[in-house]
Amino acid sequence: MDLASHTHRIEEELKNLGLPENPEGLYEPLRYFLQIGGKRIRPVLTLMAAELFGQPDKAINQAVAIELFHNFTLIHDDIMDNAPLRRGMITVHEKWNLNTGILSGDVLLIEAYKKLVQNANEHIADILDIFNRTATEVCEGQQMDMDFESRIDVSAAEYIEMIRLKTSVLLGCALEIGALMNGASKENADHLYQFGEHIGIAFQIKDDILDLYADPEKFGKQVGGDVIANKKTILHLTAVANSSKEQLSVLKNLSAESDATQKIEKTRMMYDHLGVKEKCEDLLHDHLGTAMFHLEEVKVEDHLKKSLRELAIYLINRDK
Amino acid sequence: MDLASHTHRIEEELKNLGLPENPEGLYEPLRYFLQIGGKRIRPVLTLMAAELFGQPDKAINQAVAIELFHNFTLIHDDIMDNAPLRRGMITVHEKWNLNTGILSGDVLLIEAYKKLVQNANEHIADILDIFNRTATEVCEGQQMDMDFESRIDVSAAEYIEMIRLKTSVLLGCALEIGALMNGASKENADHLYQFGEHIGIAFQIKDDILDLYADPEKFGKQVGGDVIANKKTILHLTAVANSSKEQLSVLKNLSAESDATQKIEKTRMMYDHLGVKEKCEDLLHDHLGTAMFHLEEVKVEDHLKKSLRELAIYLINRDK
Repeated sequence: MDLASHTHRIEEELKNLGLPENPEGLYEPLRYFLQIGGKRIRPVLTLMAAELFGQPDKAINQAVAIELFHNFTLIHDDIMDNAPLRRGMITVHEKWNLNTGILSGDVLLIEAYKKLVQNANEHIADILDIFNRTATEVCEGQQMDMDFESRIDVSAAEYIEMIRLKTSVLLGCALEIGALMNGASKENADHLYQFGEHIGIAFQIKDDILDLYADPEKFGKQVGGDVIANKKTILHLTAVANSSKEQLSVLKNLSAESDATQKIEKTRMMYDHLGVKEKCEDLLHDHLGTAMFHLEEVKVEDHLKKSLRELAIYLINRDK
Repeated sequence: MDLASHTHRIEEELKNLGLPENPEGLYEPLRYFLQIGGKRIRPVLTLMAAELFGQPDKAINQAVAIELFHNFTLIHDDIMDNAPLRRGMITVHEKWNLNTGILSGDVLLIEAYKKLVQNANEHIADILDIFNRTATEVCEGQQMDMDFESRIDVSAAEYIEMIRLKTSVLLGCALEIGALMNGASKENADHLYQFGEHIGIAFQIKDDILDLYADPEKFGKQVGGDVIANKKTILHLTAVANSSKEQLSVLKNLSAESDATQKIEKTRMMYDHLGVKEKCEDLLHDHLGTAMFHLEEVKVEDHLKKSLRELAIYLINRDK
């Protein structure tokens, strides 16, 4: 099946989750949040991985579980990040209140566990093992992300480790669980995990690059948002790592620049001078290469890997 | 084994949980919170239930899981209730901050799942089934509790349903899981669940009664705290249900009384007049009776039930 069919399948499942009607204050926010969209990449990865070894539908509950877990993290992260909007819509804690954000998030995590073990049969222990480990790592990544805000000595390597935990391991987990549900060997499942992990890191690096270097006409949001907010992206950390003392002082002054257009323009010039974009693209391609290596190592007929290969290229080549 | 031995065993396990050192901001709050005490009744119930059918230690990980889950709910409830103190110690979100309360709570729920499935062997699907259902119900109970604050038409029956979900099902779940881990029949496990559920309800009714009728010298905290805060306890709801129009208006005026001593004294007189304490004690004994019926129905040698019977009596006869 192709990307669109898998995505459609997931949307249908999410529409027919059968969450209880009551208490309304607990479940209505979940119905709202699950319907405001998102690319559904993670559950699609689960179905695609399952399809390498059998019918994708064998992993449908687990795919939904991964998406529910992801949405649980978004609801709680939005509180922690004080975010008013998500995908252009009002966040749960803003539309309702803090308590609703916390408790609806909690019950969504429990729903994720329910879906995860539904028809998991003999795979139940294995998929819980990887799911539990991943869930913990995602929390650890979020904690590191928050810790970084108040630190001035974050290295590029630490940043990569943070995004690995906060976002990439879940992609790996989504793939591994899909594979396990159709009885894949531990070795094949592990290669798929690593494929997902490195695609996730490459994806996040691409995100950071796009923020400053996207074509404004295609990007759909303001170019340079991370620069204005002084975010410690991989671009910024790479610039810092490659700067002389003088250049560091220029960067520091730039962070206090109040004219947004000037700030973005001067930062881009400084980054160009330091070769930041190329260095980050090299890093991106390192991870993409490692990801593709692991996909090749999966012992199934090559033509079956087409959709995963295409999805990976799509995630990395996007311009928004 | 007796209550003290079981409790000691749980304390040891909690001390040696082996939570990671880093990120410190995520795990240090958990080490703090898990060591500020609590009666550890839930995990002790798990061990006692397991002991009816074999070695209690077979259910040790599951007992710890129940306690971790309980502590997760406390950390998040304390945020939602804006509580500065828990067991006389500063709450997590007060000692650290809101984000720490949310994220440390989240990771604790995941830890609970890890412990729950550790060495669960062939019982894994059964115990996840009851655990997931219970976890959802606890969230629903918390939502109902919050909803009640802004409602003026809460009935005593609704209140009992709320405390059943918010607190009692977890006692039932603790017992059922302990029994299942030692291969108890579904029927025996179910009787233990219902024993726990009704003990939990009786326990909460006792809590409400003690608030106004405890011996101040033994109680250890202010008598009448619920009255001062205008809490919709079972005492209050029973009074409302048994009041004439005139008496309702007296109760309403009392809720606005600013002199705390007067308010408590007059409320107690009103309740005495309406027979509130006796009615609530009758309700308590109904649930205690139902609980004991279910314990008797468990098909094991009678002398094995001694510690569960004693614990139930202790929970109901306490004076603080």
